[in-house]
Amino acid sequence: MFDRVALIGIGLIGSSLARALRRDNPATRIVACARRSETLATVRRLALADETTDDPAQAVEGADLVVIATPLSAYAEIAKRIGSVLQEGAILTDVGSVKEAVIRDLQPHIPERVHFVPGHPVAGTEHSGPESGFAELFHDRWCILTPLPETAHEAVAAVTRMWERFGMRVVTMSADHHDKVLAMTSHLPHLIAYTIVGTATNLEESLKSEVIEFSASGFRDFTRIAASDPVMWRDIFLNNREAVLEIVQRFTEDLTALQRAIRFGEGDKLQELFTRTRAIRRSIIEAKQA
Amino acid sequence: MFDRVALIGIGLIGSSLARALRRDNPATRIVACARRSETLATVRRLALADETTDDPAQAVEGADLVVIATPLSAYAEIAKRIGSVLQEGAILTDVGSVKEAVIRDLQPHIPERVHFVPGHPVAGTEHSGPESGFAELFHDRWCILTPLPETAHEAVAAVTRMWERFGMRVVTMSADHHDKVLAMTSHLPHLIAYTIVGTATNLEESLKSEVIEFSASGFRDFTRIAASDPVMWRDIFLNNREAVLEIVQRFTEDLTALQRAIRFGEGDKLQELFTRTRAIRRSIIEAKQA
Repeated sequence: MFDRVALIGIGLIGSSLARALRRDNPATRIVACARRSETLATVRRLALADETTDDPAQAVEGADLVVIATPLSAYAEIAKRIGSVLQEGAILTDVGSVKEAVIRDLQPHIPERVHFVPGHPVAGTEHSGPESGFAELFHDRWCILTPLPETAHEAVAAVTRMWERFGMRVVTMSADHHDKVLAMTSHLPHLIAYTIVGTATNLEESLKSEVIEFSASGFRDFTRIAASDPVMWRDIFLNNREAVLEIVQRFTEDLTALQRAIRFGEGDKLQELFTRTRAIRRSIIEAKQA
Repeated sequence: MFDRVALIGIGLIGSSLARALRRDNPATRIVACARRSETLATVRRLALADETTDDPAQAVEGADLVVIATPLSAYAEIAKRIGSVLQEGAILTDVGSVKEAVIRDLQPHIPERVHFVPGHPVAGTEHSGPESGFAELFHDRWCILTPLPETAHEAVAAVTRMWERFGMRVVTMSADHHDKVLAMTSHLPHLIAYTIVGTATNLEESLKSEVIEFSASGFRDFTRIAASDPVMWRDIFLNNREAVLEIVQRFTEDLTALQRAIRFGEGDKLQELFTRTRAIRRSIIEAKQA
């Protein structure tokens, strides 16, 4: 696989990748880079890397694979700092949940001698930080790569092989298409979950405490989603703005229609939709994503 | 406990109750009543009841506990049919997710000699029908009773003892308060989940198939919720209209504010909310409802 992997950012995804590398590729040398010294101390305590540093330029020196796994807002600055240090023939990839913005932020700083393979392993939990990672996180999940027209096939193949080894099913698509699909499957659901839990916190005190106490299925699931990393999600929304706003608009129209059906007692409309959505769940189970 | 229990409606909740009674109270005789003959055949095949009938009036004869566990839209008709047959001193309870409408529909038909204890075991899954029930469904979940001022204490105590025996934590509150709390914790989340899955089904074909294929955490969880029983949920929304519409309105205002924050790149606002919602999840975990 790779001889020396630099992980820039080592939270849930970065540390899960480190664990998977350790498990399946013990010969690979891992360099972990993080801004906060506490994070690096945790990485050393958990033995997730062979070397640790807070300097991205130092981390990528001699690495044949560089994986950026920080919140999106850090990408441009990291690219500036590592651009001139990246080794000839090295592969640069990332794990960001948005792909057009990643290309916009990284590409101008990547020298021609480096292969850039934007990527998104679609896996995660509501937990964050290096302690919450686990090697099995990627198992049976999708990884979407969005290579540019000029990206070398061998580089895409090498990144594909790595994620496949960790159990992922890898597909490629355009960055634009990725961002639209994820706006629907991931970004809107998170925005909705954050909103609904926010709505609950704004209730009168007497109601609010009981909402937490009696938290039924539904709300409980939303609170789990709304417990996801705040900085990571702030960055996703800011960096996939167009696609998210478009899908929020569609959602709002649909909600307004349902609201109206409830107000005017149109039970048939409700039942028709609820029957249709039940069928979608079956498709998801058949697609083995449940 | 009870000598003879009539279950009017034997879907997920009714059949779970039958299983719990069988497990913990084998001496209790169970009569199951359902409209569809296939349902009754399933009940007999699974040995969930000692007697089966499609006639509610026949089912409640001689029963010291009657539990209505049908969709809400069937309540008024059932009440009309059983009112005059209910045994003196019998307890009538239910498991409906809305309580003011239940009192409205049942009370006019209940004779004075019968104790009416409106109830809501807050438990469920996205599956429905007698096959999907299980005795442990109630374990460690809340059961909310909304007795009327004139309800006899002993009747409330008897229903409380039954649900406690099956592992529930039982509280009492007013029907009005129950409906507001549940509008937030359960009804709004379901409405939102139905909406978002509906929004996905309205996407252009090329996007839609990939939304199902790459269904990430978030959307996946919503599809599970949106797979809940269509008729049951139609009835909940139609019967808790005021409280649901009020909370949908609040939700929409909050979503609009977030939408605006995304449009104008107000990252601080997003991060502040996302940090707040993460704390709510912790409260839920502390309340042991996660």
